[in-house]
Amino acid sequence: MERELSNSHTIHHRVRYSECDRMGYLYHVNHFEFLEWGRTEWFRSKFMAYRDIEDKGYAVVVVDAKLRYLKPGYYDDLISITTRISNFKGSRFEFAYVIKRISDGAVICEAETSHCFVNKMGKPLKIFPEFKELLNSFSNY
Amino acid sequence: MERELSNSHTIHHRVRYSECDRMGYLYHVNHFEFLEWGRTEWFRSKFMAYRDIEDKGYAVVVVDAKLRYLKPGYYDDLISITTRISNFKGSRFEFAYVIKRISDGAVICEAETSHCFVNKMGKPLKIFPEFKELLNSFSNY
Amino acid sequence: MERELSNSHTIHHRVRYSECDRMGYLYHVNHFEFLEWGRTEWFRSKFMAYRDIEDKGYAVVVVDAKLRYLKPGYYDDLISITTRISNFKGSRFEFAYVIKRISDGAVICEAETSHCFVNKMGKPLKIFPEFKELLNSFSNY
Amino acid sequence: MERELSNSHTIHHRVRYSECDRMGYLYHVNHFEFLEWGRTEWFRSKFMAYRDIEDKGYAVVVVDAKLRYLKPGYYDDLISITTRISNFKGSRFEFAYVIKRISDGAVICEAETSHCFVNKMGKPLKIFPEFKELLNSFSNY
Repeated sequence: MERELSNSHTIHHRVRYSECDRMGYLYHVNHFEFLEWGRTEWFRSKFMAYRDIEDKGYAVVVVDAKLRYLKPGYYDDLISITTRISNFKGSRFEFAYVIKRISDGAVICEAETSHCFVNKMGKPLKIFPEFKELLNSFSNY
Repeated sequence: MERELSNSHTIHHRVRYSECDRMGYLYHVNHFEFLEWGRTEWFRSKFMAYRDIEDKGYAVVVVDAKLRYLKPGYYDDLISITTRISNFKGSRFEFAYVIKRISDGAVICEAETSHCFVNKMGKPLKIFPEFKELLNSFSNY
Repeated sequence: MERELSNSHTIHHRVRYSECDRMGYLYHVNHFEFLEWGRTEWFRSKFMAYRDIEDKGYAVVVVDAKLRYLKPGYYDDLISITTRISNFKGSRFEFAYVIKRISDGAVICEAETSHCFVNKMGKPLKIFPEFKELLNSFSNY
Repeated sequence: MERELSNSHTIHHRVRYSECDRMGYLYHVNHFEFLEWGRTEWFRSKFMAYRDIEDKGYAVVVVDAKLRYLKPGYYDDLISITTRISNFKGSRFEFAYVIKRISDGAVICEAETSHCFVNKMGKPLKIFPEFKELLNSFSNY
Protein backbone atom coordinates (compact mmCIF):
# COMPACT_ATOMS: atom_id res chain seq x y z
CA MET A 1 0.00 0.00 0.00
CA GLU A 2 1.26 3.47 -0.91
CA ARG A 3 1.87 6.05 1.78
CA GLU A 4 0.14 9.36 1.24
CA LEU A 5 2.58 11.51 -0.73
CA SER A 6 1.61 14.90 0.64
CA ASN A 7 0.13 16.16 3.87
CA SER A 8 -1.23 19.39 2.38
CA HIS A 9 -4.84 20.47 2.05
CA THR A 10 -6.14 23.44 0.05
CA ILE A 11 -9.32 25.49 0.46
CA HIS A 12 -10.64 28.44 -1.53
CA HIS A 13 -12.16 31.73 -0.45
CA ARG A 14 -13.40 34.85 -2.16
CA VAL A 15 -12.20 37.99 -0.34
CA ARG A 16 -15.19 39.66 1.29
CA TYR A 17 -16.10 43.31 1.42
CA SER A 18 -15.75 43.43 5.19
CA GLU A 19 -12.27 41.92 4.90
CA CYS A 20 -10.86 44.92 3.01
CA ASP A 21 -9.62 48.15 4.48
CA ARG A 22 -10.01 51.74 3.34
CA MET A 23 -6.92 51.41 1.11
CA GLY A 24 -8.81 48.67 -0.74
CA TYR A 25 -6.40 45.98 0.49
CA LEU A 26 -7.31 42.73 2.18
CA TYR A 27 -6.82 43.80 5.81
CA HIS A 28 -3.74 42.10 7.24
CA VAL A 29 -5.43 40.60 10.31
CA ASN A 30 -7.79 38.57 8.13
CA HIS A 31 -4.95 36.53 6.66
CA PHE A 32 -4.35 35.26 10.17
CA GLU A 33 -7.95 34.12 10.53
CA PHE A 34 -7.73 32.43 7.10
CA LEU A 35 -4.96 30.24 8.52
CA GLU A 36 -7.44 28.84 11.02
CA TRP A 37 -9.91 28.08 8.26
CA GLY A 38 -7.20 26.18 6.41
CA ARG A 39 -6.18 24.33 9.58
CA THR A 40 -9.79 23.44 10.41
CA GLU A 41 -10.35 21.87 7.01
CA TRP A 42 -6.95 20.15 7.18
CA PHE A 43 -8.11 18.52 10.44
CA ARG A 44 -11.44 17.53 8.91
CA SER A 45 -9.87 15.98 5.82
CA LYS A 46 -6.86 14.27 7.44
CA PHE A 47 -7.81 13.48 11.06
CA MET A 48 -11.21 14.46 12.49
CA ALA A 49 -13.46 17.52 12.67
CA TYR A 50 -12.06 20.04 15.12
CA ARG A 51 -15.57 20.22 16.63
CA ASP A 52 -15.18 16.58 17.65
CA ILE A 53 -11.78 17.22 19.23
CA GLU A 54 -13.37 19.87 21.46
CA ASP A 55 -16.40 17.68 22.12
CA LYS A 56 -13.99 15.04 23.50
CA GLY A 57 -12.74 17.62 26.00
CA TYR A 58 -9.58 18.79 24.26
CA ALA A 59 -8.55 21.89 22.38
CA VAL A 60 -5.73 22.84 20.05
CA VAL A 61 -4.19 26.10 21.19
CA VAL A 62 -1.98 28.45 19.20
CA VAL A 63 1.44 28.80 20.83
CA ASP A 64 3.02 31.15 18.31
CA ALA A 65 2.52 32.47 14.80
CA LYS A 66 4.62 34.08 12.08
CA LEU A 67 3.24 35.78 8.97
CA ARG A 68 5.03 37.32 5.99
CA TYR A 69 3.05 39.55 3.63
CA LEU A 70 4.32 39.37 0.06
CA LYS A 71 1.62 40.88 -2.17
CA PRO A 72 -1.61 42.73 -1.42
CA GLY A 73 -4.95 40.94 -1.75
CA TYR A 74 -8.01 42.81 -3.05
CA TYR A 75 -11.78 42.71 -2.69
CA ASP A 76 -13.43 39.81 -4.52
CA ASP A 77 -10.11 38.06 -5.25
CA LEU A 78 -10.47 34.32 -5.31
CA ILE A 79 -7.67 32.96 -3.14
CA SER A 80 -6.37 29.55 -2.11
CA ILE A 81 -5.11 28.67 1.36
CA THR A 82 -2.82 25.65 1.43
CA THR A 83 -2.07 24.09 4.82
CA ARG A 84 0.43 21.39 5.73
CA ILE A 85 2.22 20.07 8.80
CA SER A 86 5.77 21.40 8.71
CA ASN A 87 7.19 20.03 11.96
CA PHE A 88 6.36 18.16 15.19
CA LYS A 89 8.33 17.27 18.29
CA GLY A 90 7.40 16.61 21.93
CA SER A 91 4.03 18.22 22.50
CA ARG A 92 4.37 20.78 19.68
CA PHE A 93 3.27 20.55 16.07
CA GLU A 94 3.62 23.24 13.43
CA PHE A 95 1.58 24.11 10.36
CA ALA A 96 2.89 26.03 7.34
CA TYR A 97 0.56 27.93 5.01
CA VAL A 98 0.63 29.60 1.63
CA ILE A 99 -2.11 32.02 0.57
CA LYS A 100 -2.26 32.61 -3.20
CA ARG A 101 -4.42 34.63 -5.55
CA ILE A 102 -5.93 32.26 -8.12
CA SER A 103 -6.04 34.68 -11.07
CA ASP A 104 -2.28 35.29 -11.31
CA GLY A 105 -0.83 32.77 -8.87
CA ALA A 106 0.68 35.54 -6.75
CA VAL A 107 1.73 34.47 -3.25
CA ILE A 108 -0.03 36.92 -0.93
CA CYS A 109 1.13 35.54 2.39
CA GLU A 110 3.25 32.77 3.88
CA ALA A 111 2.85 31.77 7.50
CA GLU A 112 3.61 29.24 10.21
CA THR A 113 1.75 28.53 13.44
CA SER A 114 2.72 26.18 16.25
CA HIS A 115 0.27 24.39 18.48
CA CYS A 116 -0.28 21.92 21.25
CA PHE A 117 -3.23 19.95 22.55
CA VAL A 118 -4.59 21.02 25.94
CA ASN A 119 -7.22 19.54 28.22
CA LYS A 120 -10.20 21.39 29.71
CA MET A 121 -7.96 22.91 32.38
CA GLY A 122 -5.68 24.31 29.67
CA LYS A 123 -2.89 21.86 30.60
CA PRO A 124 -0.63 21.00 27.62
CA LEU A 125 -0.73 17.36 26.54
CA LYS A 126 1.61 15.18 24.50
CA ILE A 127 0.65 14.79 20.86
CA PHE A 128 -2.13 12.15 20.75
CA PRO A 129 -0.66 8.81 19.60
CA GLU A 130 -3.15 8.47 16.72
CA PHE A 131 -2.28 12.00 15.58
CA LYS A 132 1.45 11.29 15.82
CA GLU A 133 0.94 8.14 13.79
CA LEU A 134 -0.80 10.22 11.13
CA LEU A 135 2.03 12.74 11.06
CA ASN A 136 4.59 9.96 10.78
CA SER A 137 2.66 8.47 7.87
CA PHE A 138 3.27 11.53 5.69
CA SER A 139 6.22 11.01 3.40
CA ASN A 140 6.89 14.74 3.41
CA TYR A 141 6.26 17.51 5.86
CA MET B 1 -34.88 60.10 48.01
CA GLU B 2 -34.73 61.15 44.36
CA ARG B 3 -35.43 58.62 41.65
CA GLU B 4 -32.82 58.41 38.93
CA LEU B 5 -33.97 60.77 36.19
CA SER B 6 -32.59 58.89 33.23
CA ASN B 7 -31.80 55.28 32.44
CA SER B 8 -29.31 56.08 29.71
CA HIS B 9 -25.58 55.34 29.65
CA THR B 10 -23.03 56.67 27.15
CA ILE B 11 -19.68 55.26 26.07
CA HIS B 12 -17.12 56.57 23.58
CA HIS B 13 -15.15 54.87 20.85
CA ARG B 14 -12.69 55.93 18.18
CA VAL B 15 -13.48 54.26 14.83
CA ARG B 16 -10.75 51.74 14.05
CA TYR B 17 -8.96 51.07 10.80
CA SER B 18 -10.31 47.55 10.61
CA GLU B 19 -13.84 48.89 11.10
CA CYS B 20 -13.82 50.83 7.82
CA ASP B 21 -14.53 49.46 4.38
CA ARG B 22 -12.87 50.16 1.05
CA MET B 23 -15.19 53.14 0.47
CA GLY B 24 -13.68 54.66 3.62
CA TYR B 25 -16.94 54.33 5.57
CA LEU B 26 -17.45 52.75 8.94
CA TYR B 27 -18.61 49.29 7.78
CA HIS B 28 -22.31 48.88 8.59
CA VAL B 29 -22.00 45.61 10.50
CA ASN B 30 -19.76 47.24 13.09
CA HIS B 31 -22.51 49.57 14.27
CA PHE B 32 -24.37 46.46 15.34
CA GLU B 33 -21.46 45.26 17.44
CA PHE B 34 -21.15 48.74 18.99
CA LEU B 35 -24.68 48.30 20.34
CA GLU B 36 -23.47 45.35 22.37
CA TRP B 37 -20.61 47.40 23.78
CA GLY B 38 -23.12 50.05 24.83
CA ARG B 39 -25.44 47.43 26.36
CA THR B 40 -22.55 45.75 28.21
CA GLU B 41 -21.50 48.99 29.86
CA TRP B 42 -25.15 49.88 30.57
CA PHE B 43 -25.42 46.58 32.49
CA ARG B 44 -22.17 47.24 34.35
CA SER B 45 -23.17 50.76 35.38
CA LYS B 46 -26.86 50.14 36.20
CA PHE B 47 -27.19 46.49 37.25
CA MET B 48 -24.21 44.14 37.26
CA ALA B 49 -21.36 43.11 34.94
CA TYR B 50 -22.66 40.92 32.15
CA ARG B 51 -19.81 38.52 32.94
CA ASP B 52 -21.40 37.96 36.35
CA ILE B 53 -24.82 37.29 34.80
CA GLU B 54 -23.27 34.51 32.72
CA ASP B 55 -21.24 33.23 35.65
CA LYS B 56 -24.54 32.78 37.54
CA GLY B 57 -25.71 30.49 34.72
CA TYR B 58 -27.83 32.91 32.72
CA ALA B 59 -27.47 34.72 29.44
CA VAL B 60 -29.15 37.64 27.73
CA VAL B 61 -30.03 36.67 24.18
CA VAL B 62 -30.88 38.98 21.31
CA VAL B 63 -34.39 38.29 20.01
CA ASP B 64 -34.55 40.94 17.32
CA ALA B 65 -32.76 44.07 16.15
CA LYS B 66 -33.50 47.10 14.02
CA LEU B 67 -30.93 49.58 12.75
CA ARG B 68 -31.31 52.78 10.75
CA TYR B 69 -28.25 54.34 9.14
CA LEU B 70 -28.47 58.11 8.94
CA LYS B 71 -24.97 59.41 8.21
CA PRO B 72 -21.71 57.68 7.34
CA GLY B 73 -19.01 57.27 9.98
CA TYR B 74 -15.33 57.57 9.02
CA TYR B 75 -11.97 56.22 10.18
CA ASP B 76 -10.69 57.78 13.41
CA ASP B 77 -14.03 59.51 14.16
CA LEU B 78 -14.67 59.78 17.86
CA ILE B 79 -18.21 58.55 18.41
CA SER B 80 -20.61 58.17 21.32
CA ILE B 81 -22.97 55.24 21.84
CA THR B 82 -25.92 56.04 24.12
CA THR B 83 -27.96 53.11 25.42
CA ARG B 84 -31.24 53.13 27.33
CA ILE B 85 -34.09 50.75 28.13
CA SER B 86 -36.99 51.69 25.87
CA ASN B 87 -39.57 49.06 26.80
CA PHE B 88 -40.19 45.89 28.86
CA LYS B 89 -43.12 43.51 29.17
CA GLY B 90 -43.45 39.82 30.10
CA SER B 91 -40.06 38.24 29.49
CA ARG B 92 -38.92 40.82 26.91
CA PHE B 93 -36.95 44.02 27.40
CA GLU B 94 -35.83 46.43 24.73
CA PHE B 95 -32.87 48.77 24.42
CA ALA B 96 -32.73 51.85 22.21
CA TYR B 97 -29.42 53.31 21.00
CA VAL B 98 -28.09 56.45 19.36
CA ILE B 99 -24.63 56.53 17.80
CA LYS B 100 -23.29 60.05 17.24
CA ARG B 101 -20.09 61.56 15.89
CA ILE B 102 -18.63 63.83 18.56
CA SER B 103 -17.08 66.45 16.26
CA ASP B 104 -20.32 67.63 14.62
CA GLY B 105 -23.01 65.88 16.67
CA ALA B 106 -24.26 64.02 13.58
CA VAL B 107 -26.46 61.02 14.34
CA ILE B 108 -24.83 58.13 12.50
CA CYS B 109 -27.20 55.36 13.52
CA GLU B 110 -30.31 54.71 15.60
CA ALA B 111 -31.22 51.21 16.69
CA GLU B 112 -33.34 49.02 18.94
CA THR B 113 -32.70 45.49 20.15
CA SER B 114 -35.02 43.25 22.18
CA HIS B 115 -33.85 40.59 24.57
CA CYS B 116 -34.76 38.00 27.12
CA PHE B 117 -32.92 36.14 29.84
CA VAL B 118 -32.31 32.44 29.21
CA ASN B 119 -30.92 29.67 31.39
CA LYS B 120 -28.08 27.28 30.45
CA MET B 121 -30.49 25.19 28.37
CA GLY B 122 -31.48 28.28 26.37
CA LYS B 123 -34.97 28.33 27.95
CA PRO B 124 -36.45 31.87 28.14
CA LEU B 125 -37.02 33.18 31.67
CA LYS B 126 -39.18 35.95 33.09
CA ILE B 127 -37.39 39.22 33.71
CA PHE B 128 -35.48 38.77 36.99
CA PRO B 129 -37.41 40.55 39.81
CA GLU B 130 -34.41 42.68 40.80
CA PHE B 131 -33.95 43.72 37.15
CA LYS B 132 -37.66 44.54 36.81
CA GLU B 133 -37.44 46.63 39.98
CA LEU B 134 -34.55 48.54 38.43
CA LEU B 135 -36.47 49.16 35.22
CA ASN B 136 -39.49 50.34 37.19
CA SER B 137 -37.30 52.75 39.13
CA PHE B 138 -36.45 54.73 36.02
CA SER B 139 -38.68 57.75 35.67
CA ASN B 140 -38.33 57.60 31.90
CA TYR B 141 -37.70 54.84 29.43
CA MET C 1 -39.26 32.77 -23.60
CA GLU C 2 -40.07 32.06 -19.94
CA ARG C 3 -39.54 34.69 -17.33
CA GLU C 4 -37.44 33.64 -14.39
CA LEU C 5 -39.82 32.25 -11.78
CA SER C 6 -37.92 33.24 -8.65
CA ASN C 7 -35.54 36.00 -7.71
CA SER C 8 -33.91 34.11 -4.85
CA HIS C 9 -30.30 32.95 -4.57
CA THR C 10 -28.87 30.61 -1.94
CA ILE C 11 -25.32 30.23 -0.65
CA HIS C 12 -23.86 27.89 1.96
CA HIS C 13 -21.47 28.46 4.82
CA ARG C 14 -19.98 26.40 7.61
CA VAL C 15 -20.05 28.29 10.92
CA ARG C 16 -16.50 29.17 11.89
CA TYR C 17 -14.78 28.96 15.24
CA SER C 18 -14.28 32.70 15.41
CA GLU C 19 -17.98 33.23 14.71
CA CYS C 20 -19.09 31.56 17.97
CA ASP C 21 -19.24 33.14 21.39
CA ARG C 22 -18.33 31.78 24.81
CA MET C 23 -21.83 30.30 25.20
CA GLY C 24 -21.04 28.22 22.10
CA TYR C 25 -23.64 30.04 19.99
CA LEU C 26 -23.13 31.63 16.61
CA TYR C 27 -22.56 35.22 17.75
CA HIS C 28 -25.54 37.38 16.76
CA VAL C 29 -23.57 40.05 14.89
CA ASN C 30 -22.25 37.50 12.41
CA HIS C 31 -25.71 36.76 11.05
CA PHE C 32 -25.78 40.37 9.91
CA GLU C 33 -22.54 39.99 8.00
CA PHE C 34 -23.86 36.76 6.43
CA LEU C 35 -26.66 38.84 4.88
CA GLU C 36 -24.06 40.80 2.96
CA TRP C 37 -22.48 37.59 1.69
CA GLY C 38 -25.88 36.47 0.45
CA ARG C 39 -26.54 39.87 -1.16
CA THR C 40 -23.12 39.91 -2.83
CA GLU C 41 -23.67 36.54 -4.46
CA TRP C 42 -27.25 37.50 -5.39
CA PHE C 43 -25.77 40.50 -7.27
CA ARG C 44 -23.14 38.34 -8.95
CA SER C 45 -25.66 35.73 -10.10
CA LYS C 46 -28.53 38.03 -11.12
CA PHE C 47 -26.99 41.39 -12.11
CA MET C 48 -23.25 42.01 -11.93
CA ALA C 49 -20.41 41.55 -9.45
CA TYR C 50 -20.65 44.14 -6.69
CA ARG C 51 -16.96 44.85 -7.27
CA ASP C 52 -17.88 46.08 -10.76
CA ILE C 53 -20.63 48.33 -9.39
CA GLU C 54 -18.05 50.04 -7.19
CA ASP C 55 -15.49 50.13 -9.97
CA LYS C 56 -18.04 52.09 -12.04
CA GLY C 57 -18.14 54.71 -9.27
CA TYR C 58 -21.27 53.64 -7.40
CA ALA C 59 -22.00 51.92 -4.15
CA VAL C 60 -24.97 50.21 -2.58
CA VAL C 61 -25.50 51.53 0.93
CA VAL C 62 -27.51 49.97 3.73
CA VAL C 63 -30.32 52.28 4.82
CA ASP C 64 -31.90 50.08 7.45
CA ALA C 65 -31.91 46.49 8.67
CA LYS C 66 -34.15 44.23 10.72
CA LEU C 67 -33.17 40.83 12.09
CA ARG C 68 -35.18 38.24 14.01
CA TYR C 69 -33.33 35.43 15.78
CA LEU C 70 -35.37 32.23 15.90
CA LYS C 71 -32.97 29.41 16.81
CA PRO C 72 -29.33 29.38 17.89
CA GLY C 73 -26.61 28.39 15.41
CA TYR C 74 -23.59 26.38 16.56
CA TYR C 75 -19.94 25.92 15.64
CA ASP C 76 -19.39 23.89 12.46
CA ASP C 77 -23.10 23.97 11.50
CA LEU C 78 -23.59 23.98 7.76
CA ILE C 79 -26.07 26.76 7.03
CA SER C 80 -27.82 28.20 3.98
CA ILE C 81 -28.42 31.90 3.38
CA THR C 82 -31.25 32.59 0.93
CA THR C 83 -31.55 36.12 -0.45
CA ARG C 84 -34.31 37.66 -2.54
CA ILE C 85 -35.61 41.11 -3.46
CA SER C 86 -38.73 41.71 -1.38
CA ASN C 87 -39.65 45.25 -2.43
CA PHE C 88 -38.55 48.29 -4.46
CA LYS C 89 -39.95 51.79 -4.90
CA GLY C 90 -38.39 55.17 -5.79
CA SER C 91 -34.70 54.92 -4.95
CA ARG C 92 -35.12 52.13 -2.37
CA PHE C 93 -34.91 48.39 -2.81
CA GLU C 94 -35.24 45.78 -0.11
CA PHE C 95 -33.80 42.31 0.33
CA ALA C 96 -35.29 39.57 2.51
CA TYR C 97 -33.18 36.71 3.88
CA VAL C 98 -33.63 33.36 5.54
CA ILE C 99 -30.73 31.64 7.31
CA LYS C 100 -31.29 27.91 7.89
CA ARG C 101 -29.31 25.05 9.40
CA ILE C 102 -28.97 22.33 6.77
CA SER C 103 -28.99 19.33 9.12
CA ASP C 104 -32.49 19.87 10.57
CA GLY C 105 -33.88 22.68 8.38
CA ALA C 106 -34.25 24.96 11.42
CA VAL C 107 -34.70 28.65 10.58
CA ILE C 108 -31.97 30.41 12.56
CA CYS C 109 -32.65 33.97 11.45
CA GLU C 110 -34.95 36.01 9.20
CA ALA C 111 -33.98 39.49 8.10
CA GLU C 112 -34.65 42.39 5.79
CA THR C 113 -32.32 45.16 4.67
CA SER C 114 -33.14 48.21 2.56
CA HIS C 115 -30.69 49.94 0.26
CA CYS C 116 -30.10 52.61 -2.29
CA PHE C 117 -27.44 53.32 -4.88
CA VAL C 118 -25.16 56.28 -4.16
CA ASN C 119 -22.47 57.99 -6.19
CA LYS C 120 -18.89 58.70 -5.05
CA MET C 121 -20.12 61.75 -3.09
CA GLY C 122 -22.58 59.54 -1.21
CA LYS C 123 -25.57 61.16 -2.99
CA PRO C 124 -28.56 58.78 -3.32
CA LEU C 125 -29.49 57.86 -6.89
CA LYS C 126 -32.64 56.46 -8.47
CA ILE C 127 -32.60 52.72 -9.04
CA PHE C 128 -30.55 52.13 -12.22
CA PRO C 129 -32.92 51.46 -15.17
CA GLU C 130 -31.26 48.14 -16.02
CA PHE C 131 -31.57 47.07 -12.38
CA LYS C 132 -35.23 48.13 -12.26
CA GLU C 133 -35.85 46.17 -15.43
CA LEU C 134 -34.34 43.11 -13.76
CA LEU C 135 -36.51 43.55 -10.66
CA ASN C 136 -39.61 43.94 -12.82
CA SER C 137 -38.72 40.77 -14.68
CA PHE C 138 -39.13 38.65 -11.56
CA SER C 139 -42.56 37.07 -11.41
CA ASN C 140 -42.40 37.06 -7.60
CA TYR C 141 -40.63 39.17 -5.04
CA MET D 1 16.47 69.72 27.53
CA GLU D 2 16.03 66.06 28.41
CA ARG D 3 15.57 63.53 25.70
CA GLU D 4 12.54 61.32 26.04
CA LEU D 5 13.62 58.30 28.06
CA SER D 6 11.26 55.76 26.54
CA ASN D 7 9.57 55.30 23.19
CA SER D 8 6.77 53.13 24.57
CA HIS D 9 3.06 53.92 24.67
CA THR D 10 0.37 51.98 26.54
CA ILE D 11 -3.36 51.71 25.93
CA HIS D 12 -6.05 49.78 27.78
CA HIS D 13 -8.89 47.62 26.59
CA ARG D 14 -11.59 45.50 28.18
CA VAL D 15 -11.95 42.14 26.40
CA ARG D 16 -15.27 42.08 24.58
CA TYR D 17 -17.83 39.32 24.34
CA SER D 18 -17.35 39.00 20.59
CA GLU D 19 -13.60 38.65 21.12
CA CYS D 20 -13.92 35.37 23.03
CA ASP D 21 -14.31 31.92 21.58
CA ARG D 22 -16.45 29.00 22.66
CA MET D 23 -13.73 27.80 25.06
CA GLY D 24 -14.14 31.15 26.84
CA TYR D 25 -10.69 32.35 25.78
CA LEU D 26 -9.80 35.61 24.08
CA TYR D 27 -9.70 34.37 20.48
CA HIS D 28 -6.10 34.36 19.25
CA VAL D 29 -6.68 36.44 16.11
CA ASN D 30 -7.89 39.38 18.18
CA HIS D 31 -4.50 39.83 19.84
CA PHE D 32 -3.17 40.60 16.39
CA GLU D 33 -5.73 43.33 15.84
CA PHE D 34 -4.93 44.76 19.30
CA LEU D 35 -1.38 45.33 18.07
CA GLU D 36 -2.73 47.70 15.45
CA TRP D 37 -4.68 49.60 18.08
CA GLY D 38 -1.50 49.99 20.09
CA ARG D 39 0.47 51.07 17.02
CA THR D 40 -2.22 53.57 16.00
CA GLU D 41 -2.13 55.27 19.38
CA TRP D 42 1.67 55.14 19.45
CA PHE D 43 1.64 57.08 16.15
CA ARG D 44 -0.90 59.57 17.50
CA SER D 45 1.05 60.22 20.68
CA LYS D 46 4.60 60.24 19.27
CA PHE D 47 4.36 61.33 15.62
CA MET D 48 1.01 62.10 13.99
CA ALA D 49 -2.43 60.51 13.64
CA TYR D 50 -2.29 57.59 11.24
CA ARG D 51 -5.36 59.07 9.52
CA ASP D 52 -3.20 62.07 8.59
CA ILE D 53 -0.45 59.85 7.19
CA GLU D 54 -2.98 58.26 4.84
CA ASP D 55 -4.54 61.63 4.02
CA LYS D 56 -1.08 62.76 2.84
CA GLY D 57 -1.08 59.85 0.38
CA TYR D 58 1.02 57.34 2.28
CA ALA D 59 0.31 54.15 4.15
CA VAL D 60 2.18 52.01 6.63
CA VAL D 61 2.03 48.40 5.52
CA VAL D 62 2.71 45.30 7.60
CA VAL D 63 5.61 43.32 6.16
CA ASP D 64 5.73 40.55 8.73
CA ALA D 65 4.46 39.67 12.18
CA LYS D 66 5.35 37.30 14.99
CA LEU D 67 3.17 36.53 18.00
CA ARG D 68 3.79 34.36 21.05
CA TYR D 69 0.86 33.39 23.27
CA LEU D 70 1.86 33.00 26.89
CA LYS D 71 -1.37 32.98 28.95
CA PRO D 72 -5.03 32.92 27.97
CA GLY D 73 -7.11 36.10 28.17
CA TYR D 74 -10.75 35.94 29.28
CA TYR D 75 -13.98 37.84 28.71
CA ASP D 76 -14.13 41.20 30.47
CA ASP D 77 -10.43 41.13 31.42
CA LEU D 78 -8.95 44.59 31.51
CA ILE D 79 -5.72 44.40 29.51
CA SER D 80 -2.88 46.76 28.60
CA ILE D 81 -1.16 46.88 25.22
CA THR D 82 2.31 48.42 25.32
CA THR D 83 3.91 49.37 22.00
CA ARG D 84 7.45 50.52 21.28
CA ILE D 85 9.82 50.77 18.33
CA SER D 86 12.29 47.90 18.63
CA ASN D 87 14.36 48.36 15.47
CA PHE D 88 14.72 50.37 12.24
CA LYS D 89 17.05 50.14 9.26
CA GLY D 90 16.75 51.10 5.58
CA SER D 91 13.07 51.32 4.80
CA ARG D 92 11.97 48.95 7.59
CA PHE D 93 10.91 49.73 11.13
CA GLU D 94 9.77 47.27 13.74
CA PHE D 95 7.41 47.52 16.69
CA ALA D 96 7.46 45.25 19.75
CA TYR D 97 4.37 44.74 21.92
CA VAL D 98 3.42 43.31 25.27
CA ILE D 99 -0.20 42.51 26.14
CA LYS D 100 -0.83 42.12 29.87
CA ARG D 101 -3.83 41.43 32.05
CA ILE D 102 -4.13 44.26 34.57
CA SER D 103 -5.56 42.24 37.50
CA ASP D 104 -2.60 39.89 37.94
CA GLY D 105 0.03 41.37 35.62
CA ALA D 106 0.14 38.18 33.54
CA VAL D 107 1.76 38.58 30.13
CA ILE D 108 -0.82 37.25 27.68
CA CYS D 109 1.05 37.84 24.46
CA GLU D 110 4.33 39.23 23.12
CA ALA D 111 4.66 40.24 19.50
CA GLU D 112 6.70 42.04 16.88
CA THR D 113 5.60 43.52 13.56
CA SER D 114 7.75 45.08 10.84
CA HIS D 115 6.60 47.79 8.49
CA CYS D 116 7.45 50.17 5.75
CA PHE D 117 5.91 53.31 4.33
CA VAL D 118 4.40 52.97 0.86
CA ASN D 119 2.93 55.49 -1.56
CA LYS D 120 -0.49 55.29 -3.25
CA MET D 121 0.89 52.83 -5.80
CA GLY D 122 2.06 50.55 -3.00
CA LYS D 123 5.73 51.34 -3.72
CA PRO D 124 7.96 51.05 -0.61
CA LEU D 125 9.57 54.31 0.52
CA LYS D 126 12.54 55.12 2.71
CA ILE D 127 11.68 55.97 6.30
CA PHE D 128 10.51 59.61 6.28
CA PRO D 129 13.34 61.85 7.57
CA GLU D 130 11.17 63.39 10.29
CA PHE D 131 10.17 59.91 11.43
CA LYS D 132 13.78 58.72 11.42
CA GLU D 133 14.73 61.76 13.48
CA LEU D 134 12.06 60.82 15.99
CA LEU D 135 13.30 57.24 16.20
CA ASN D 136 16.87 58.46 16.66
CA SER D 137 15.73 60.74 19.48
CA PHE D 138 14.67 57.81 21.65
CA SER D 139 17.34 56.88 24.12
CA ASN D 140 16.15 53.27 24.06
CA TYR D 141 14.38 51.10 21.57
